[in-house]
Amino acid sequence: MSDTQVTVGILGGGQLARMSACAAYRLGLRVAVAERTAGSPAGQITPLEFAGEWEDTAFMERFAAASDVVTLENEFIDAAILGRLEALGKPVYPGAATLALIQDKLVQKQTLAARGLPVAPFREVDGAADAQRCGAEWGYPFVLKARRNAYDGYGNRTVAAAAHLERAIGELGHPQRTLYAEAFVPFRMELATQVARGRDGAVRVYPVVETRQERHICKWVLAPAPVPEAVRQRARQLAVAAVEAVAGVGIFGVEFFLTRGNDVLINELAPRPHNTGHYTIEACCTSQFENHLRAVLGWPLGSPDLIVPAAAMVNLLGKRDGPLHLGDLPAALRQDAAKVHIYGKAE
Amino acid sequence: MSDTQVTVGILGGGQLARMSACAAYRLGLRVAVAERTAGSPAGQITPLEFAGEWEDTAFMERFAAASDVVTLENEFIDAAILGRLEALGKPVYPGAATLALIQDKLVQKQTLAARGLPVAPFREVDGAADAQRCGAEWGYPFVLKARRNAYDGYGNRTVAAAAHLERAIGELGHPQRTLYAEAFVPFRMELATQVARGRDGAVRVYPVVETRQERHICKWVLAPAPVPEAVRQRARQLAVAAVEAVAGVGIFGVEFFLTRGNDVLINELAPRPHNTGHYTIEACCTSQFENHLRAVLGWPLGSPDLIVPAAAMVNLLGKRDGPLHLGDLPAALRQDAAKVHIYGKAE
Repeated sequence: MSDTQVTVGILGGGQLARMSACAAYRLGLRVAVAERTAGSPAGQITPLEFAGEWEDTAFMERFAAASDVVTLENEFIDAAILGRLEALGKPVYPGAATLALIQDKLVQKQTLAARGLPVAPFREVDGAADAQRCGAEWGYPFVLKARRNAYDGYGNRTVAAAAHLERAIGELGHPQRTLYAEAFVPFRMELATQVARGRDGAVRVYPVVETRQERHICKWVLAPAPVPEAVRQRARQLAVAAVEAVAGVGIFGVEFFLTRGNDVLINELAPRPHNTGHYTIEACCTSQFENHLRAVLGWPLGSPDLIVPAAAMVNLLGKRDGPLHLGDLPAALRQDAAKVHIYGKAE
Repeated sequence: MSDTQVTVGILGGGQLARMSACAAYRLGLRVAVAERTAGSPAGQITPLEFAGEWEDTAFMERFAAASDVVTLENEFIDAAILGRLEALGKPVYPGAATLALIQDKLVQKQTLAARGLPVAPFREVDGAADAQRCGAEWGYPFVLKARRNAYDGYGNRTVAAAAHLERAIGELGHPQRTLYAEAFVPFRMELATQVARGRDGAVRVYPVVETRQERHICKWVLAPAPVPEAVRQRARQLAVAAVEAVAGVGIFGVEFFLTRGNDVLINELAPRPHNTGHYTIEACCTSQFENHLRAVLGWPLGSPDLIVPAAAMVNLLGKRDGPLHLGDLPAALRQDAAKVHIYGKAE
């Protein structure tokens, strides 16, 4: 809170907050973390750990008082909570207005489509009749999704036939959760990039990467994507337009489908550092985490360019790949040029 | 203290501890910091901050109990204090025996010379008569140094003529502080490298760099040093031999003089990450800080190779270059490809 001790407050204490904190520490910043429980991956690495409920106004005011600027590490915090922080006069980036256009994925699609940006056909689904109409119009399979609080495939169902519709709708939590549907895109590749956008609207775009998802979870990333330069250029243009459509400030992850006809469709926008951009820590001049901080602080953005000809990143998950024991880490480190990041998650 | 939550304890809370902590966090480690006062650069970035005196046995036992392995960020902690931690059964790297051979610079010179390693002529100085003998034998100028607790030139005096001897000896604190003398080496360049040495004796050597010191403070570093490969090779061999001479485990900085005849003399050995090696964070496959942690944890060491053709690092100090205001930082960051590290020092 002084000239030489700027504190960045992060809503959420997961791995993305931890990696943001590491970037912050190299810039001489302090970091405050607000998470529901103590001992989160980011909470472990700061003395300014706040454990409590984001819905608790007094708690959030204490957190805000410790922070010069507030940012977030996931899109699940309700925009109204950000709005209350803004009403206190606290700078919040990305802000409530941006979150409101992103965290409801139906609203996100509508926002992008309203700007003329290419997305797969989509429609609100409030029950089986709506879903039936989607199948009739688009054919099967198509994709049912929860509008909010879905991540890593929890909250998505690919519906192969009309007979499975009722079950998928129920499994996704309808009617407690609101749903929407998207046409299935028979893509030949998935692409992603990250866009840093400053308070002044300046943008820097990271290399366009190929991503391989398995069961909706990012498995590996290859930078740059092995596609024609014109495709990469198109993806970069769309990414910037998407972030501008939501008036975003900070780093944004943008995912795309590359169709068999080499069309680029925007799949999803995330208002935070993105798991397809972790490679930027080692492989780019300025990591996505550092540029995120620079953006939310109103500082000039750094070069997002690769400092190596190419980079690959593999994502290992305890649940999928077996639990990690630190005893196994030495073997991983035996790969001479490999870089290993451990997120400090309890599971 | 559990399988998935290894804590590295660092004695000292300065910038080198802070940078080590950042590397630790990326490896999923926790960090404990012991410093005399709270709010140190490293203490700011961990919930496990211990503020107290290293000479306070109960304090050190609390710190040790929180740490799975103990390391240090400067050579000013008395070897006997490390010895007490080792007596508690705590792994300490570098250990008491290594520190005892390094922290007294006269003993360090004697240790290196006893191994036949090339150093400038040196001699213990216990008063003006000893110093006069140095001048008579080596000529002027020569260098008077405090044997212990000297850094960044505080504790060094270059004596230009016999008439200045008494004053220099007094200014260096004799007889309260013990002194020694070194012949002045009319070097054509200063070189440095870092050596990581594991618990198992495995070594990895960083690129040999040119360093420019101004008033005994590192001003800039150029990697690799613009000297013949044979010179770099010689420096690397000497660096490894020096670290082996003190049975070092962890990262060690080694400084050299390159004489006009292209001889390489060892100037100094530091049992910790070195300010001539900060460039390794961006420019090398594995930073000196990460390899330090890997060494003290008994993990395999990573490649120290450059991932870019060359790198330069400039060290800005508040006292020399004017106080830093965070308001100035945006201007520094406007250099597109520059990386800035702020150490969080109060001054």
